[in-house]
Amino acid sequence: MTDLQNIEPQALRKLIRDKKVTGHTSGMAKGYIQANVVILPLDYAYDFLKFCFKNPKTCPLLDISEVGEVNFSKYGKDADITTDVGAYRVYENGELIETPTDVKHLFNDQMVSFLIGCSFTFEHALLEAGIPLRHLEEGHNVPMYITNIPAEPAGRFEGNITVSMRPMTMKDAIRATEITTHFKNVHGTPIHIGNPADFGIKDLENPDFGEPVKIKDNEVPVFWGCGVTPQSVALDAKPELIITHAPGHMFITDVKDSELSD
Amino acid sequence: MTDLQNIEPQALRKLIRDKKVTGHTSGMAKGYIQANVVILPLDYAYDFLKFCFKNPKTCPLLDISEVGEVNFSKYGKDADITTDVGAYRVYENGELIETPTDVKHLFNDQMVSFLIGCSFTFEHALLEAGIPLRHLEEGHNVPMYITNIPAEPAGRFEGNITVSMRPMTMKDAIRATEITTHFKNVHGTPIHIGNPADFGIKDLENPDFGEPVKIKDNEVPVFWGCGVTPQSVALDAKPELIITHAPGHMFITDVKDSELSD
Repeated sequence: MTDLQNIEPQALRKLIRDKKVTGHTSGMAKGYIQANVVILPLDYAYDFLKFCFKNPKTCPLLDISEVGEVNFSKYGKDADITTDVGAYRVYENGELIETPTDVKHLFNDQMVSFLIGCSFTFEHALLEAGIPLRHLEEGHNVPMYITNIPAEPAGRFEGNITVSMRPMTMKDAIRATEITTHFKNVHGTPIHIGNPADFGIKDLENPDFGEPVKIKDNEVPVFWGCGVTPQSVALDAKPELIITHAPGHMFITDVKDSELSD
Repeated sequence: MTDLQNIEPQALRKLIRDKKVTGHTSGMAKGYIQANVVILPLDYAYDFLKFCFKNPKTCPLLDISEVGEVNFSKYGKDADITTDVGAYRVYENGELIETPTDVKHLFNDQMVSFLIGCSFTFEHALLEAGIPLRHLEEGHNVPMYITNIPAEPAGRFEGNITVSMRPMTMKDAIRATEITTHFKNVHGTPIHIGNPADFGIKDLENPDFGEPVKIKDNEVPVFWGCGVTPQSVALDAKPELIITHAPGHMFITDVKDSELSD
């Protein structure tokens, strides 16, 4: 049986392309960056690229395809974005209409694909530094909350930002800020440490996405910009067509986590 | 007489708009970022934005206007890009046709303006750290060279990168690298330290732009990505219309140098 944890990215993408690997990619091709995917018609690509530029903490852009191309010059030279994600979500005019395992039938020479940083990368660095992550300990997804903080608007894209939350001691929160300053391409430093009411989160036990986590008495909630933001903002704009990865089914890139640290 | 060195950016932009200040802006509104300007038709904006994203060391994008707008959400909320630069260069199909003091007559609701980081900002930080800069000592422009290093192409924009060169001792070169790692939005760390023949520069005494500087026996040439790159690459693409600032007549932004350090 193939060791999916230590497999090379090219080999893993081929297994996904051939539908031999279909599940969540968490922990696979260890050490390589996994990315969020947004595929849009060219008509929306300029506004979306501008949105990414203006909102680096919630929408950290890793790579962008040329128009109509299925690969990425830096993050996946021999990739095919229409087949190399295990499960896609297809939305028309903001409505989910399909969750296929490839999107060859929807792709044309006027589409552009965006790879956006994912928190897997900085979580790995936090764990290496001995900072425990509660949602991993509890074995579920990180809790995510829609804030009342507006993202910088860009063309047709606007909306409030979504954050993910990880509880930790204040000492660990400061150390985590220090570490994530070196991971600007995967959300960077926290957006807030402490009081969620400051930016419109009423109840930490009822996240908008993901599952709640226990916060211990000596811990504070630490909030990072979340990759759900670009998807939700893009969906609000109701483009004729938008394709994303299905949650947990990330695009496996050729770039190592360690190359992202700046 | 107005103290142009300690004037606020808004006031300086008004003087430039009213044609009361017309010369080079070097040293004016001290402490505030000055930016390179590129104004393009919307048709070229997406490719140019993508080029900036793919080439952050030579083309560090600071801000981008909305389509047809003359101001910038972050770097100049009350600015007017058609009047607030002291001298412009207007190119049609890659040919210089005009050097006006405003471009109101050329602007329309399908134009997009880009502000690109300029080396003034990091040079200030190097001087503060006690690193001498020869071209300033000699009282002329920095020498710039076209290399054989290709920029990452994006759509219709492609070409080799241009670098600026500052000679210094190896000790200062290492310290300068340390300092400029915190100035990613104004070219960041050097592209090369040492041997110019490695990337196609034959003769340091004959720069492609600017003036040569003396290199002392105990010094090495240190090369940074240069803001001439986006202009020259954009010109090579021969768009119907491209407007840039004239050399030395920078756009004065509302953002302080110190806010750019990361």
